[in-house]
Amino acid sequence: MGDLLGVAVLGAGHMGADHIRRLGRVVSGARVAAVADPAAERAGEAVAGLDGVTVHTDPVAALDAPGVDAVLIASPGPAHEEALLAAFARGLPVLCEKPMVPDSTGALRVVEAEARLGRRLAQVGFMRRYDSEYRRLKALLDGGGLGRPLMLHCTHRNVSSPGHFSSAMLINSSVSHEIDAARWLLGQELTAVTVLRPRPSAHAPEGLLDPQFVLFETDGGALVDVEVFVNCGFGYQVRCEAVCERGSARIGDEHTMVVTTAGGAREDVAQDYLVRFAGAYDREVQAWVDATRRGEVTGPSVWDGYAASVVAEAGVRALETGGRVAVGLAPRPDLYAGVSR
Amino acid sequence: MGDLLGVAVLGAGHMGADHIRRLGRVVSGARVAAVADPAAERAGEAVAGLDGVTVHTDPVAALDAPGVDAVLIASPGPAHEEALLAAFARGLPVLCEKPMVPDSTGALRVVEAEARLGRRLAQVGFMRRYDSEYRRLKALLDGGGLGRPLMLHCTHRNVSSPGHFSSAMLINSSVSHEIDAARWLLGQELTAVTVLRPRPSAHAPEGLLDPQFVLFETDGGALVDVEVFVNCGFGYQVRCEAVCERGSARIGDEHTMVVTTAGGAREDVAQDYLVRFAGAYDREVQAWVDATRRGEVTGPSVWDGYAASVVAEAGVRALETGGRVAVGLAPRPDLYAGVSR
Amino acid sequence: MGDLLGVAVLGAGHMGADHIRRLGRVVSGARVAAVADPAAERAGEAVAGLDGVTVHTDPVAALDAPGVDAVLIASPGPAHEEALLAAFARGLPVLCEKPMVPDSTGALRVVEAEARLGRRLAQVGFMRRYDSEYRRLKALLDGGGLGRPLMLHCTHRNVSSPGHFSSAMLINSSVSHEIDAARWLLGQELTAVTVLRPRPSAHAPEGLLDPQFVLFETDGGALVDVEVFVNCGFGYQVRCEAVCERGSARIGDEHTMVVTTAGGAREDVAQDYLVRFAGAYDREVQAWVDATRRGEVTGPSVWDGYAASVVAEAGVRALETGGRVAVGLAPRPDLYAGVSR
Amino acid sequence: MGDLLGVAVLGAGHMGADHIRRLGRVVSGARVAAVADPAAERAGEAVAGLDGVTVHTDPVAALDAPGVDAVLIASPGPAHEEALLAAFARGLPVLCEKPMVPDSTGALRVVEAEARLGRRLAQVGFMRRYDSEYRRLKALLDGGGLGRPLMLHCTHRNVSSPGHFSSAMLINSSVSHEIDAARWLLGQELTAVTVLRPRPSAHAPEGLLDPQFVLFETDGGALVDVEVFVNCGFGYQVRCEAVCERGSARIGDEHTMVVTTAGGAREDVAQDYLVRFAGAYDREVQAWVDATRRGEVTGPSVWDGYAASVVAEAGVRALETGGRVAVGLAPRPDLYAGVSR
Repeated sequence: MGDLLGVAVLGAGHMGADHIRRLGRVVSGARVAAVADPAAERAGEAVAGLDGVTVHTDPVAALDAPGVDAVLIASPGPAHEEALLAAFARGLPVLCEKPMVPDSTGALRVVEAEARLGRRLAQVGFMRRYDSEYRRLKALLDGGGLGRPLMLHCTHRNVSSPGHFSSAMLINSSVSHEIDAARWLLGQELTAVTVLRPRPSAHAPEGLLDPQFVLFETDGGALVDVEVFVNCGFGYQVRCEAVCERGSARIGDEHTMVVTTAGGAREDVAQDYLVRFAGAYDREVQAWVDATRRGEVTGPSVWDGYAASVVAEAGVRALETGGRVAVGLAPRPDLYAGVSR
Repeated sequence: MGDLLGVAVLGAGHMGADHIRRLGRVVSGARVAAVADPAAERAGEAVAGLDGVTVHTDPVAALDAPGVDAVLIASPGPAHEEALLAAFARGLPVLCEKPMVPDSTGALRVVEAEARLGRRLAQVGFMRRYDSEYRRLKALLDGGGLGRPLMLHCTHRNVSSPGHFSSAMLINSSVSHEIDAARWLLGQELTAVTVLRPRPSAHAPEGLLDPQFVLFETDGGALVDVEVFVNCGFGYQVRCEAVCERGSARIGDEHTMVVTTAGGAREDVAQDYLVRFAGAYDREVQAWVDATRRGEVTGPSVWDGYAASVVAEAGVRALETGGRVAVGLAPRPDLYAGVSR
Repeated sequence: MGDLLGVAVLGAGHMGADHIRRLGRVVSGARVAAVADPAAERAGEAVAGLDGVTVHTDPVAALDAPGVDAVLIASPGPAHEEALLAAFARGLPVLCEKPMVPDSTGALRVVEAEARLGRRLAQVGFMRRYDSEYRRLKALLDGGGLGRPLMLHCTHRNVSSPGHFSSAMLINSSVSHEIDAARWLLGQELTAVTVLRPRPSAHAPEGLLDPQFVLFETDGGALVDVEVFVNCGFGYQVRCEAVCERGSARIGDEHTMVVTTAGGAREDVAQDYLVRFAGAYDREVQAWVDATRRGEVTGPSVWDGYAASVVAEAGVRALETGGRVAVGLAPRPDLYAGVSR
Repeated sequence: MGDLLGVAVLGAGHMGADHIRRLGRVVSGARVAAVADPAAERAGEAVAGLDGVTVHTDPVAALDAPGVDAVLIASPGPAHEEALLAAFARGLPVLCEKPMVPDSTGALRVVEAEARLGRRLAQVGFMRRYDSEYRRLKALLDGGGLGRPLMLHCTHRNVSSPGHFSSAMLINSSVSHEIDAARWLLGQELTAVTVLRPRPSAHAPEGLLDPQFVLFETDGGALVDVEVFVNCGFGYQVRCEAVCERGSARIGDEHTMVVTTAGGAREDVAQDYLVRFAGAYDREVQAWVDATRRGEVTGPSVWDGYAASVVAEAGVRALETGGRVAVGLAPRPDLYAGVSR
């Protein structure tokens, strides 16, 4: 390995700025070469203290900036498709934040474009695959010692939701993580979805159906249930229990320092995904940088991004109709044979 | 309090024998006065070492035996209705094991018979209401500090099922405990049920739909989900998490002695409900004996027994049809105003 | 088993009243036949609602009351020796609360008196031997799977100490439980003791050396350390970790209902020994009643009571001198061969 | 921040190779500029795949190699003093692995040399200060909410010890971590040490006193006890409980994925310190690189390294004599005012 990988970062918002910090100050082997954001000022702040970065308002200009070897897309979802296609046109490796493309039609166009190239260039940012607990669970399931997985019980809670959060976003923003995690853990595709709606919490914003309880069926006969509750008030909790034929395995229970005072024995609960999954983001980006420098593409593919879009759209319809909605995927190009692991 | 309460125990099988031991050697204030079982030999063995017990093959004869002040019904479910009505006719206080009456029509007849008496005589054996963890959870929910309960996530696992266990029995035998526990914890009636069927475990007997995933809706807008898995192979696990507007509470996680060896840190898992709920049975029977000696009737009522039958029947239909089945309860007699607590 | 065991209870204070309630309303097979307390009014209140109990101010009169088959001694420690000797003279089985006899000289006289009888009549109330977690640990150690025990790490904490508590009482009242538990768990005698004194907590009463850290050596080469902290402010915690040649085992970590709110994930901590060890007291007294009705004497012997006195006295000297104090036991009568299990 | 920090790594053994990997492939902002090891071949292997590294057998030559901005000392302890003094002479910032200097006389010479410079150049590699759980505990204690710390209960266990491990090394190699952690957590100096020796485990090598139980007193009146057991057979466990005036806090209990099978509920236990403290080493080195690039020196000082040496020497004498040994520190130069935090 020789020179540092020069990365163009598209988007300098909350997530983009965090990736800029990570590329510039945490991971090894990379540097930020260019940043693009419609708000140039925000982009400038995000790269303060980093040398040799050019700042752009046009993402395409950032791709063509000097020293750019690869692209990290952290702009809003609707801008992803164009950015991905531009990167493909230039043969640039990409790490694209989720959702890869919000609508499944656009997502399919990205799949087809990469399939036409005949080789993978893009990795989608499903960072849970890089969380140490998820990886341990995946390894355990793949090892086969517990037998076939029968059910996954999942919990996804946030302290509170941003003001613009809609009932559909509980599915296509929050649960999209579980959609990918379930496909990856089980090595199966999701085939149908049903959404149950308990009476909303008094602490949910007016009109928001929160919590929801989402049920997925898989082509392997497994069942996946997800409690999603984005105004739970007490913490950021992501848990998963895999129930198998010969045992069960559970991750995500908080357990760090136990403090005992007159109120009882207490453990902190993470309040933010950037705390809970900080290590996962670091590992994801380090793995992407390392693979890219070796000339390889690993990690979740654009097919995974597309499948997540299709399932999320079915989930939103299930939420709206109250019934069970089947999931219909396009034929999978050979490039993406097998659910990616 | 003066003399010991003389109890006629109907049924000397697994459960009956355990109650005879409990009345004779564990709880205070009671003695076994009579036992009835069609297999007189089995009844005789169950009372070996106890003085002053008459043994009968006819349950009615046992009710009329000398020294009988109260009845504990532990015979097979189909015999319960007749025994309950006979006890009512004699004005005898009853503790009746679950299921109170297996079919809801018969259960309703029991409700109507007791309602005609105008006073309660019977307590139904939903012993989870006497488990210390369930009581703690109930107290927490009733205290209101966590706000309104939105969802209950329940787990009910057995190592293996007896040979005669049918797919319907996962609902009307196993899940019937969760049916009562949910009604009691929430103080709400269950209004609809859906049963999902993952592909059965390879370790389930041929033809048995095991595990199942059962969803209940309530008249308060809450959602109750139950994983029932009676051939899980590893232990007897009963867990419940109540998710509320301002927090969640979870009971049933195994935690006793932690043994660390080269294999990791390990805790035992209970293998049998008589281990997990031994204390609950003791407390249930002690509370029944104490109340009866005071001339009171407390605990779960025959209305609770009836409601459990109706919900279980709806659950079995939901299992068979694959769809959502509404629960239809008869009007509640004034004697049972409110879900009993 | 025929008639109920008639028990004379000596002492109707906090502990005595609790045992009266237990004999009268919790355990099976016994009844309170007589109660003695210098404060007759207090004795009368303790037996309210129980039939057939005679009340006395003189303990000897209680032993001679009609219907007395056995004695439970719960009077203050200085009264124990006389009561034990009186019971021995009458051939009455005894359950004697700890400390059996506060001074080792008197304790030795009790040992010698029972040894002269040539058979055991007395059981000493070290109730931890009846706690389910301690029993599990004992069974694990005896099973030998973890190899020889090398160290026991013990914690003994109270919310606060009564006004009359002295620095010596941390040893001879609180740690006396660990003295017996260590002898029993290890099957070894304690041979020396050292007491370390960290700077006292600001919340300890003026002049009280609290916490203390006590180290015991055993004749098997094991080491036992005990943190005793009787004004910890937050709960009643009794923990024990046995470190062995091939693994370790830990009991006493609180784990019941986990409540997650904005403050984190929390579990209650027991505030009182009557809560933490309620089951142990029940089992102890039930076991004593059952054995006595069978004509047997089991459980901790007066030798165990004597040994605890000697070790506690050495501990108090170690506290006062700051140095290591050897423990000197009298020769053990054959009646008490082996550390009792 | 501009160019990468060029680091000379002294020593390419187990620890040195791991630091080379970390500087080259994990942390941001640094590169390996030179490596020195008497075994040139080993050094060459450690830097395979890294560009622009010169390899040396003489550590001083590595310090003088082109592009060297700072030094990481990972050679055997006896070589540290000379390397530190050489770095001081060149004004190079240093990260020195523990033990800083094995004997306290040499350690004091390093303290005096840096004090003469009048500014700090060296950080000592007590990496527990960078472990997230220790940092959380430190923050909690410093916050004062639990009141003054009274006791620290520490556990330090290894699966097995290397062949050359001596009884003294349990103190001066293993417990040296707790020596620094206790000083840092409490902000107090250790003033005396006693070592207790239970009968050794049958699994300890012949002649090795393992386990040991070490007691430290502090100038603030606190007590620190450490179980050190380097042939425990089952895992690498580092735990610490701080008992304070108003509560206690415990870190280091294993809790990740819980797997329930027929054997019970099980969690893995780390087998190696590189697993348990991997994150701590990464954070330590990243913090050192970041501070050095800013022109600052943070983290544990050579005074901390010196104090650890003095206490460890007292500990070894205590082990040999069986008694309590007082700790005598030289006067602290102003440069190191306060226990470093």
